[in-house]
Order: sequence, then C-alpha cells, then structure tokens
Amino acid sequence: MQDNPVNKLFEKRVSWLADSGPEDDIAISSRIRLARNLCDLPFPSNASTEHLDSSTAAVLLAVEKLKIFKKFYEIDMSKLSALDRQVLLERRLISREFYAKKQNTALIMTDDEICAIMINEEDHLRMQAILSGLRLGEVWKIIDRMDDRLSTELPFAFDVNLGYLTSCPTNVGTGIRASVMLHLPGLVLCEQINAVIQAVNKLGLAVRGIFGEGTESLGNLFQISNQSTLGETEVQIIDRLESVIRQIINHEKNSRQKLLHNRREFLMNHIGRAFGILRHSYIVSSEETLNSLSALRLGVDMGMFSSVDIHTVNELFVTVQPGHLQKYAGKEIDPSERDIFRATLIRERLKSSEKK
Amino acid sequence: MQDNPVNKLFEKRVSWLADSGPEDDIAISSRIRLARNLCDLPFPSNASTEHLDSSTAAVLLAVEKLKIFKKFYEIDMSKLSALDRQVLLERRLISREFYAKKQNTALIMTDDEICAIMINEEDHLRMQAILSGLRLGEVWKIIDRMDDRLSTELPFAFDVNLGYLTSCPTNVGTGIRASVMLHLPGLVLCEQINAVIQAVNKLGLAVRGIFGEGTESLGNLFQISNQSTLGETEVQIIDRLESVIRQIINHEKNSRQKLLHNRREFLMNHIGRAFGILRHSYIVSSEETLNSLSALRLGVDMGMFSSVDIHTVNELFVTVQPGHLQKYAGKEIDPSERDIFRATLIRERLKSSEKK
Repeated sequence: MQDNPVNKLFEKRVSWLADSGPEDDIAISSRIRLARNLCDLPFPSNASTEHLDSSTAAVLLAVEKLKIFKKFYEIDMSKLSALDRQVLLERRLISREFYAKKQNTALIMTDDEICAIMINEEDHLRMQAILSGLRLGEVWKIIDRMDDRLSTELPFAFDVNLGYLTSCPTNVGTGIRASVMLHLPGLVLCEQINAVIQAVNKLGLAVRGIFGEGTESLGNLFQISNQSTLGETEVQIIDRLESVIRQIINHEKNSRQKLLHNRREFLMNHIGRAFGILRHSYIVSSEETLNSLSALRLGVDMGMFSSVDIHTVNELFVTVQPGHLQKYAGKEIDPSERDIFRATLIRERLKSSEKK
Repeated sequence: MQDNPVNKLFEKRVSWLADSGPEDDIAISSRIRLARNLCDLPFPSNASTEHLDSSTAAVLLAVEKLKIFKKFYEIDMSKLSALDRQVLLERRLISREFYAKKQNTALIMTDDEICAIMINEEDHLRMQAILSGLRLGEVWKIIDRMDDRLSTELPFAFDVNLGYLTSCPTNVGTGIRASVMLHLPGLVLCEQINAVIQAVNKLGLAVRGIFGEGTESLGNLFQISNQSTLGETEVQIIDRLESVIRQIINHEKNSRQKLLHNRREFLMNHIGRAFGILRHSYIVSSEETLNSLSALRLGVDMGMFSSVDIHTVNELFVTVQPGHLQKYAGKEIDPSERDIFRATLIRERLKSSEKK
C-alpha cells in the first residue's frame, strides 16, 4: 500500500465535476455501482476478521493480476485518518457506510477517480464508475467490462433464479444502482420540484440528496437512481432511468425559460445576490454556500457570468465541504473557523476565475 | 419664477454629500435653520391668503434687492408636482411639513443648494444653510450673515425679553436649530447606540433619523440637534452641540477600532455582503439599500474598497430615494418597479465608480 494517496487527489480537479459531458448544464454526473460477493466467503456482516482479510486479499490479487486499471491506488481504510476518509466521501469515491466502517476494509480507486471498488462494505465488492454529464451508456460499458474481467478471477455469488446474491435483498439480481446527479434550480424556484419527485417515485425510481440516502437536497442537487434490481436486465434498468432523466432535464429547461421570460428580475436578483455573497462574504456556512453555488451555476449556464468558469463553480460544490477545507488548511479546524476559511477560499477561486 | 428648477438639480451632485469636510468619515453634514417672522403680518397658521401672499412678496423682494445670493431660484411651491416636492425633501432643501403644505408657499434656494429659505412654512421664514462635514462654525457665519442682511429689509418679530417670536414656543428666542448628521454604524454594530442616544437626550439634545422628526434612523444615519432655543446665545448653542458631536465621533471611532481588532471577520463579512448586494442585486428595497450603503460607507472609510469613491456612496443615500428614482426614470413608477430600477441604478453607479 502506498503513502497517503488522498493527498494526491488534491493535485488535480475532480474529473466528474471538471470534465464536460452531454447535458452537463443540468446533468452533473452519471454513476453506476455494482454489488458483488464472493461465494466462498460469508457476507461481510457475518464474516470474521480472517474472512474479511481473505476477501480483501482476493480482490486485490485479482485487480493486480488482471491489470484492469492503468494507474490505481490500493488503500487500507483502517490506516486513513477520519479527515482523509471524509475527503473520499466528499469526492463520492466511498459511501457513508464505508466511511463509518473503516476496519478490515480497503478501497481501490483509479488515478482519474473514474473507477473505484469498495472492499467489504455491505458486500465484498461495491464497484463504481462515474463520468461527468449524462453518460449512463458509457459508464455501463466501463463497469460492465470491469465486472466481466473480475468475474474471470473471482467466484461471484450467483443464483440461476435470483441472479447476483447480495447482503441486502434490495440489491439481489443485477446488483446494479445507476444514478444521475441533476442540478434542478429551475424546478425548485418554480416550486415544481415536489411534483417531479413524486412522479419519479411513482415510476419506481429514488430521489436523494448529493451525499446519498437520507441526505438533503442541498444546492438543488438531486440524485435519481433505480430502486429495483430484479426483473429487468441492467440495460433495461439504465434505459428506463435515462428516459426519465431526459424528461426531468426537459422540465428543468422549461422552468428556466419560464423564469427567464416571466420573472426575469426575480431570477437575476436570485442569481446576482448569490454571486455577491460568494464573491464578497467573509463568513459563509456550508448550506448557504451550496445554495448560492446552485444559483451561480444557474447564472453561468444562462450566460449571465461570462467571466466565471463553470468548472470552477462545479468543483466548489465539493471543495467547500468540511473534509476538503481542512485538507486545504492543512489542519483540523472547528466549524466557525471553517465558515471563515470557506469564504476566503471561495472569494479567491472566483477572483482567479475572473482573471482568466 | 423660472421653469422647473428642480430639474436643474439633477445636473450636478448634492453638495453637502459630494463635497469633503472635517471629520466627513463620520459627520456627513452640518446644517443650521433659523425661524423668523414678519412683525406686521399674522403667523402663517393664522394668516389669510392675502397675508401669505404679502409675506412671500416681502421676502422675495428683500432677497432680490439685497442681492444676498449670486445664483438662486425662486420656486412657487404650488406649481411644483408632488414628485418635484419630494425631490426637494429628499435633498433636505425643504421640511416634511413644507412638502405637505404646498399652497401659498415659496422656496428660495441657491444654485449650490447650500442656502435655502422656506417661505410660509410654520413661520414666515425658515432659512437654512448646509455644508458637508463638521462645519457648524462656517455654517453659522453663512446663515448669520443671511439673517443680518435680511433684517435690514424685513421687520422681524422680536421681543426684548423673549427674543425672536415664532409660531411654536419651542423655537422662541434664538429660533435656531443646528444639527449634524452623523453616520454611526460602529456604535450600532457594537450595540452601544442606545446608550449614546440616551446620554445625548439627557444633555438636552435631540436625536432623529435622516429625514427629521419622527423618521427612523435608516442607514445608521442620525441627526443630532439642539432642543432648546432660549437662555443661550446662538454661538453657545452651537459650541455645546459641537462638543457633544465630537465626543460621539470619538465613540464611533473607538467602536470601529474595537470591531476591527476583536471582530474582524464579522465586520468584513457585514461590509462585504452589503457590497455584494448593492453591486449584484436586481431587486432591492429602500431600507435594505440604506443599510447596505451604510455598511459600504463604513468599508470605504476603513480602506476596504480602494476602487469605490466615497462621494458616489454618499450621493446614493439620496439618489436611491423614491422621488429621485422617479425623476431619473422620467415617470412615476410603482414601488415594486422602483425596487428594480433602484437596483439597476446602484449597480451602474458602483460599476462606473470602479472603473475610475
């Protein structure tokens, strides 16, 4: 295992935020996770330390032997500080559960942060691939190939009738969780978001906040994902999700046009004030930041701020989080100091963005 | 009488806001008003239309004959629109009572707006002189000379025991009302303003908002003036007022230093956000504007905004008022449209201020 690879993440931008992609004014990123287990070992929740060591060793060996990834890191999670684990969580490389678990867990992640495998989360393997924009098809190709190749070395628990076996019955079958993160400020401002969420839920899809299950939709960011993993093929699940996503994107576009035509000053005021706060405040909470960034992003999408780079705004969604802030500061800082440091960082980023 | 001289006011800046003066970081302006009545006519409240015409004619004749002012306007108030009267009120050239009275009243004002005489307000004459900064002595010289010269032509009502006679007993004696407008954001932010107001009141001085009696202290602007007009000479009244003003100015300076040293981020945040709102909002109320301008002015005084011209900020206090806004717009506009127009005007003024 290498010396703290989390520090290396700070040398470059978050690819799923800094890159472009189809519909990336509204669709921030597309992600697919697959749950897999090894048939010759008990599920992690039921496993001894030896069992967990075995599953970790087996996955690491397979990844190394198969040379699936060009450049990647193997991370022993028990050796990471809480702060480093938080950074991985904020970059969406690990789940909340994995962040909390820590013992006998390991993470494999590629240098470009597109692929990752959590070992011994709820299942032995939780693979993920993530790309910017609406690119579920591409993401599926990447993760499907990863899965295919790993299956040549790892004996995945599979039942002919049920499909892939998982710790939690909700994942049984395909073990797939495909999700797209959407930025929906238009629907929120038009107060149509609840109607959209209800409609999406009725279609058997889940709507969550930026950091997954149980988190609020801060910054008007919503993750839409499939709920059921049984009864359809992976491609059917992805296609159905994508068709709903495209409808939501159209609704969002309509809302923005409606606001621009019917409530222009209201919209400009909302966006302008958010920019004013981000560009000129000296104390700003995480929540106010995310909501202001949302408005600024909307403004950039609508061409209001030619001087502000959209990728700078995108990345700020992640870099203003507590873990990232403390890594930038090089030390742990308490919440009230963080609000000051956050404001400083945002002012500087936006200022340097303007100069370009 | 000339064609609408109110329009001419818009060709130049408000002198008591645009000029510099001693202590002008805190003392915006110094003003003295003198109440005088003609002994051969009943007080305005008791006068017939003919009486009022006579007093108007007498004052106009005296001013013209004595050539007191180089360049001045004579304004028949009954011929002015409500909007034009409001502009005069916002520029502090007339009182609220005079604004409302309108019939059989006239205004004499100099081209530089330093001197004005309201004819047939509560008294036959209400003269005023106003200068930027803390300059009560200079203002007194100007108005004392005006009074002396007018008295050579006009028979002022005077009693050897009581002094000058006035409509309201509170003005009897010297008939003087000297006031200094102070900008006290430091004392407000430190929550010491109420203690200061109470102390000032105990010294027999009055504290009022920007537009005189009964108005709130919007924008952290406070007018401090003498209450009593009897028992002291004009110079004693002015000296006593000035010495209290100097103490308040010192308190304000101390508060600002305290904030800067003990609560730096709080202060910078307060100021930065205010600038952000003024520079980037598209809808802004009069109240939010005045409070934000107050914070911005504090920031400029403290050297935080080298690019923003203090006189631009000063003038905005007046030009964002409803009357001025509607004159700029060239038409009457309702309050919600005004909030939009106000924001536009402020954004443009601050933007052009930055370019200089």
